Amino acid sequence: MRSLWLNSLTRQGLYRLSTLKYSTSVEPKEPVVKTKSIPGPKSVELKKQLDSVQATGTIQFFADYDKSIGNYIHDVDGNILLDVYTQISSVPLGYNHPRLFNVFNNEQNVKTLINRPALGVFPGKEWPEKLHSVLQSIAPKGLNKITTMMCGSCSNENAYKAIFIWYQNKLRGNTPLTDQERNSCMINIPPGAPKLSILSFKGAFHGRTLGALSTTHSKYIHKLDVPSFDWPIASFPQYKYPLEENVAYNKKEDEKCLSEVQDLIKQYASKVPVAGVVVEPIQSEGGDNEASPEFFQSLQAICKKNGIALLIDEVQTGGGSTGKFWCHEHFNLDGPPDVVTFSKKLQLGGYFHNDDFAPKEPYRIFNTWMGDPGKVLLLEEILKVIQEDSLLANVNVAGKVLKEGLLSLEKEFPHILNSTRGRGTFLAVNCTNTKVRDQIVGALKLHGVQTGGCGEISIRFRPALIFKEYHANIVLDRFRQVLKAI
Amino acid sequence: MRSLWLNSLTRQGLYRLSTLKYSTSVEPKEPVVKTKSIPGPKSVELKKQLDSVQATGTIQFFADYDKSIGNYIHDVDGNILLDVYTQISSVPLGYNHPRLFNVFNNEQNVKTLINRPALGVFPGKEWPEKLHSVLQSIAPKGLNKITTMMCGSCSNENAYKAIFIWYQNKLRGNTPLTDQERNSCMINIPPGAPKLSILSFKGAFHGRTLGALSTTHSKYIHKLDVPSFDWPIASFPQYKYPLEENVAYNKKEDEKCLSEVQDLIKQYASKVPVAGVVVEPIQSEGGDNEASPEFFQSLQAICKKNGIALLIDEVQTGGGSTGKFWCHEHFNLDGPPDVVTFSKKLQLGGYFHNDDFAPKEPYRIFNTWMGDPGKVLLLEEILKVIQEDSLLANVNVAGKVLKEGLLSLEKEFPHILNSTRGRGTFLAVNCTNTKVRDQIVGALKLHGVQTGGCGEISIRFRPALIFKEYHANIVLDRFRQVLKAI
Repeated sequence: MRSLWLNSLTRQGLYRLSTLKYSTSVEPKEPVVKTKSIPGPKSVELKKQLDSVQATGTIQFFADYDKSIGNYIHDVDGNILLDVYTQISSVPLGYNHPRLFNVFNNEQNVKTLINRPALGVFPGKEWPEKLHSVLQSIAPKGLNKITTMMCGSCSNENAYKAIFIWYQNKLRGNTPLTDQERNSCMINIPPGAPKLSILSFKGAFHGRTLGALSTTHSKYIHKLDVPSFDWPIASFPQYKYPLEENVAYNKKEDEKCLSEVQDLIKQYASKVPVAGVVVEPIQSEGGDNEASPEFFQSLQAICKKNGIALLIDEVQTGGGSTGKFWCHEHFNLDGPPDVVTFSKKLQLGGYFHNDDFAPKEPYRIFNTWMGDPGKVLLLEEILKVIQEDSLLANVNVAGKVLKEGLLSLEKEFPHILNSTRGRGTFLAVNCTNTKVRDQIVGALKLHGVQTGGCGEISIRFRPALIFKEYHANIVLDRFRQVLKAI
Repeated sequence: MRSLWLNSLTRQGLYRLSTLKYSTSVEPKEPVVKTKSIPGPKSVELKKQLDSVQATGTIQFFADYDKSIGNYIHDVDGNILLDVYTQISSVPLGYNHPRLFNVFNNEQNVKTLINRPALGVFPGKEWPEKLHSVLQSIAPKGLNKITTMMCGSCSNENAYKAIFIWYQNKLRGNTPLTDQERNSCMINIPPGAPKLSILSFKGAFHGRTLGALSTTHSKYIHKLDVPSFDWPIASFPQYKYPLEENVAYNKKEDEKCLSEVQDLIKQYASKVPVAGVVVEPIQSEGGDNEASPEFFQSLQAICKKNGIALLIDEVQTGGGSTGKFWCHEHFNLDGPPDVVTFSKKLQLGGYFHNDDFAPKEPYRIFNTWMGDPGKVLLLEEILKVIQEDSLLANVNVAGKVLKEGLLSLEKEFPHILNSTRGRGTFLAVNCTNTKVRDQIVGALKLHGVQTGGCGEISIRFRPALIFKEYHANIVLDRFRQVLKAI
């Protein structure tokens, strides 16, 4: 019965503990690996069952979410892994955080779950207050409007649409809409469906629906056989590490890429004009490729100069794991980007923008659900915990330990590891080659640490915001064991 | 406290009542309209509050979902409307159905809500069983695989991708992938990103992300200023009513449209070959345009003959309101369609398909969440209630009353209404023109009945599955009052 376990949590006083105290009090002391391989036999059996109804080629193991706790994910074979990948960077407070149980111990909130509205037409009476108190509280400075969506791809798709509409409105000025525009868009051709583009970067990942996929360039298998818009793609800086020893080289990288952006805007102006640029603050799927604050400042300047929009895609970087709530806060930009998209750790998708990117006419950016109020309830509690438990400060402390440890391992194993990089706990390191990288990620798992690969040769670390110094030390210890055995 | 209201429901024995008994026992007897206009003053005030953070141009009123019950939606101004629009056709069991409360009165289910997995990588131990017992139980006959998604647009987008991949694999045969294919797709050009198309119909609606939007042709405002793929668009039959008096005309419509499909496939073969056809069983947003079973049978035959896929988009029609769980079950097709997409009443999105449309390589159809297990829990309970309470039978009974009533109103008001059509409670009627239609939809609301417009001149009825004969009679009574006053 529900009441029993709720009472039990209450009796133990767990609701009153801070996140970090809670984690230390209930988490296992260290990972436990019981099976010779992961997936273990029970996962393999479940995979077989699932395979008859759903593709299973990407499944690593079946988890036991009833038992998973804090930074530790349990699998069905009794393995307990320290999870520094967190469902592809989408878990902010670890597993089974007691404060999140609270959210649905509330009649009104359960009603929100079972009465899902078409938010754009019949929102509930709480919606304006929730948007103000929850989403507005994390709005990037200077962006006062929020369009809510459900996932990262549809956030980017709709943000692109907002950019195209904004761009065409600028061109149209006060000229009234023509019948030709109205009619041609209905059959997919200009001028109503104009030839316009979003410029993206090599190595970028912005989603997998057809518009978003035209700006995604991380792995061929994501794109093969799918028709695409012929939109311009610029190079993204490929830095050498350590940064402080490669200042001149990396600066040249910035300049080369920025100059490509400028050239492509010019080159496409006459055929498929660029209406906006989309960029990740750190290219995540593409290999945790960073660029300097100066790169982003110049990129913003180029956009402004050319009258095109700058969209910063914070789907993976947003939510605190870079040590600031939004990664682009590290860049000291000259005013906000035009649009910032989010999803993952924020539970629902969407984008922040200013009034210029809110179409005046209704139903231009719209869908049935326009987000999910049930996810906003979770986000509300998550944001409270982040603040009350100073989790951004925690990220910076734990991230420093993890990063310094990775740098030490690089020195110890220079033939295997290099190019440690990142901000907060949003960190990555490169391996000699893909084979070695995959070997290490697999071996780390068998040593009780769940990480993820990204790009061709990188390992990415994406712990939850409740990941602490001592967790970092466990990761580093296991990593050293793995590297020694290679 | 949660326990109090749960206990109260239990004390009243409401958990044990069937859906229909429950509805009649707790619903208001009839609609109540307290304000002179809807939105009323409190909705207008909330709209003002929301407007500072989010576009509000599409909002009809703010609802009170705590009070809404069964077929009745309460607004914040004390109006109680009989809801035959149900959040754009997305509410299967009405508001606050007691059986749905049960779903989250369960520790494991709450854990599912607060530990959202990346389903494609680390699914929970319950996932295979849930897919089998829940989604497999409603699979269209002959389609054994399910790809779960989150909304209608991303279901269609990913279904298109599955079709493109299937089509290219057929072409490729056993030829190994070339470097040119791998490299060209990364920069958005053929042969890796091939010129291929999905054929759609005039008046169709398949979503608003850029791929889906290229197949949507219901209203110009959905498409204006957004770049589009130049994909072929065939005419959709425009029937005359009543059907039995226009057999020859309508048959010619079928033939004309089918011949256009065939011509377009041929015409596009040399430039942007058609890999698949997407079609709604009833074009919903576009004006509730029906086509005959024979039309769909012939369409399927054309697809088979040309080696292209047939995707039936049941996002709005699926889930029971046509009197069968899937509308295409009415069509007596020669085998299943290749792909069937769903969302809305099913709580989560996705598509059913057979093994041919499941890419062999991992990560081709993929995203972080791949659906939402929390929504599957709701769907599980919804399906149980549909079966236990024989709601499809109920839909047929209530739909007959509503349809016959609309036909009577047509005869009474032939200068205003015509072309009553549809299946089950999924019904529509045409008005003289757009202005009259909008006037009627507005007046119906002030008479306590929430309907929706679709197409240029249609009113659509989308009641929940618990809508009964006496609800239909209330709708018809209020409709008559409105028509008399015009």
